[in-house]
Amino acid sequence: MPQRLGFGQTFAPIMYQAEFRDGAWGQGQLLPYGTIVLDPASKVLHYAQSVFEGLKAFRATHDRAVIFRPALNWERMNRASRRMLMPELPRALFMEALYALTAHCEALMPRSSGESLYLRPIMFGTQPTLGLAASDTFSFLVIASPSQAVASGPLRVIVERKRARAATGGTGDVKASGNYGASLRATADAAASGFSQPLWLDSVQHRYVEELSIMNFFAVVDGMLLTPALNDSILDGVTRRCVIELAIGAEIPVRECRIEIDELLALIEAGRCTEAFACGTAAIVAPVSAIGDGDGRIFELAQPLGLMSQKLRQDLLDIQEGRTEDRFGWLQSIPDQYYPAPS
Amino acid sequence: MPQRLGFGQTFAPIMYQAEFRDGAWGQGQLLPYGTIVLDPASKVLHYAQSVFEGLKAFRATHDRAVIFRPALNWERMNRASRRMLMPELPRALFMEALYALTAHCEALMPRSSGESLYLRPIMFGTQPTLGLAASDTFSFLVIASPSQAVASGPLRVIVERKRARAATGGTGDVKASGNYGASLRATADAAASGFSQPLWLDSVQHRYVEELSIMNFFAVVDGMLLTPALNDSILDGVTRRCVIELAIGAEIPVRECRIEIDELLALIEAGRCTEAFACGTAAIVAPVSAIGDGDGRIFELAQPLGLMSQKLRQDLLDIQEGRTEDRFGWLQSIPDQYYPAPS
Repeated sequence: MPQRLGFGQTFAPIMYQAEFRDGAWGQGQLLPYGTIVLDPASKVLHYAQSVFEGLKAFRATHDRAVIFRPALNWERMNRASRRMLMPELPRALFMEALYALTAHCEALMPRSSGESLYLRPIMFGTQPTLGLAASDTFSFLVIASPSQAVASGPLRVIVERKRARAATGGTGDVKASGNYGASLRATADAAASGFSQPLWLDSVQHRYVEELSIMNFFAVVDGMLLTPALNDSILDGVTRRCVIELAIGAEIPVRECRIEIDELLALIEAGRCTEAFACGTAAIVAPVSAIGDGDGRIFELAQPLGLMSQKLRQDLLDIQEGRTEDRFGWLQSIPDQYYPAPS
Repeated sequence: MPQRLGFGQTFAPIMYQAEFRDGAWGQGQLLPYGTIVLDPASKVLHYAQSVFEGLKAFRATHDRAVIFRPALNWERMNRASRRMLMPELPRALFMEALYALTAHCEALMPRSSGESLYLRPIMFGTQPTLGLAASDTFSFLVIASPSQAVASGPLRVIVERKRARAATGGTGDVKASGNYGASLRATADAAASGFSQPLWLDSVQHRYVEELSIMNFFAVVDGMLLTPALNDSILDGVTRRCVIELAIGAEIPVRECRIEIDELLALIEAGRCTEAFACGTAAIVAPVSAIGDGDGRIFELAQPLGLMSQKLRQDLLDIQEGRTEDRFGWLQSIPDQYYPAPS
């Protein structure tokens, strides 16, 4: 394994694959990780009929690997499939893929805090015809990457005032591949201006905070935790849900609401919004140290490294990595039968 | 070749491929048509970093094959690449791909009117890493499909009042793969209601007509040809341009403007909008016979088979297929050196 793991750069030597044809999913199987063959006319290449998920398995201090809240990813992947006119995955198939892959990867799972086995289920249309229509054949793959958190340092984000990540009435609330490629230009422009990420606003009024391309957004205002209420252009993040549940458990007041960007910036200036953070499976929880606006103004957060976010990040990692009790029942252990027979 | 060609179902036995790595395009080459290999972590599968084009080569009554307005596709593909943070294609590489592939396919090009060799350039990111960032390697492919027109019969379209094809500030004005998968659900719902296609409105007010997923929209009102003015969520169609140029040449008044859907429906009811049609490279020009609304009302066009659209379609085909003079200079012939040496 390389010295610096990074995120999603090193892959486990095995993967899981199942194929959908003639209206049904076939038997899935573990295979050596390696290239796949696709017809150059495959729907996924031309029309992005593709949905994916991201979740993590942890070894850390656990005796055996555990998978974090996989049922939420299964439900969300099926919501995405329905939106994208793709077949749903039976729960048993989705879980078998995660169990079998994780069990076989246990020996190479990193155990340092903040590291994990990142699991990436993906499903895409493979029918080789150019008419714009749903595919009639699909591949489901799960690949695994021993990874560090994707963003650990504080983020400097810039308000994206013109472009939109996802339309109202579009596909922004599901993990369809097309949402992500569409965000790259704004991310590059943010980087060119010295920021980590664009902070996306709603596509209709360009007025309300939505999310960062792969992370949800939170702000601490007057000691209260605020996050944009879900709509059809914001992804219903698993880490977002965890943060809300952890905050409620810690008796931190939480509100899911519309957050007007100009009001938020004024609250930072007034010292009432003291911190902000982003969260996502890959990023865990990452503080936002500053929010830039297109006009050159930069709004520095009073707590650039986060106070509440540090606590929430640590609470989450303590559960994921087995240092505290799994009091919410978030950890899924792997049934014995998925482990390779001892040789 | 199968009895019924269809659209994009039969592929020429050769394809063209070039690879981008280390910041530059390599030498392209003709290869046998066949499966390509991709790493399962490739950016295109997960994040839809993919753009494509569609254009046609004609044999028909021409002695040698001609390609229709390929420079417009080259320019548009590069606009798409810039939007999607992908490398631009040198004009020489793009043209060589079309020339070489078409020249080698000349013998299997259909010659019946309405049939052609459909050319599909596509370029996508192949870097196998899961971080959301632009790929650093890309494949450019051109595949070719002897095809019929994709839609010949009159279209019954239904106004899509809720969903959006593309956001203002999004990628709807370029041929990014993500735009197309996102439209499938609405197309299926339209079909389930007995319509061919959704008629998309703007994503902000859901009030102005934009396009059909793979076709631009025109209406004939008081003898004048109207089409939605281009914006960043409408594709700048090559056939749209041709229709406008042909209409101007025929002294038909043309206006590119905002078309309010409720006003359009009222004009149909009042008998002032007598016909409507869709156009695109794959579809050529196809009359719209009726527009349905979500509330169950159906607005039948007085000219369901089109009068102006039939004339424009025929004018276009006459040029494409060589029955009239190429008075606009739209046909690109293929330099001799691209033809295979006689054996």
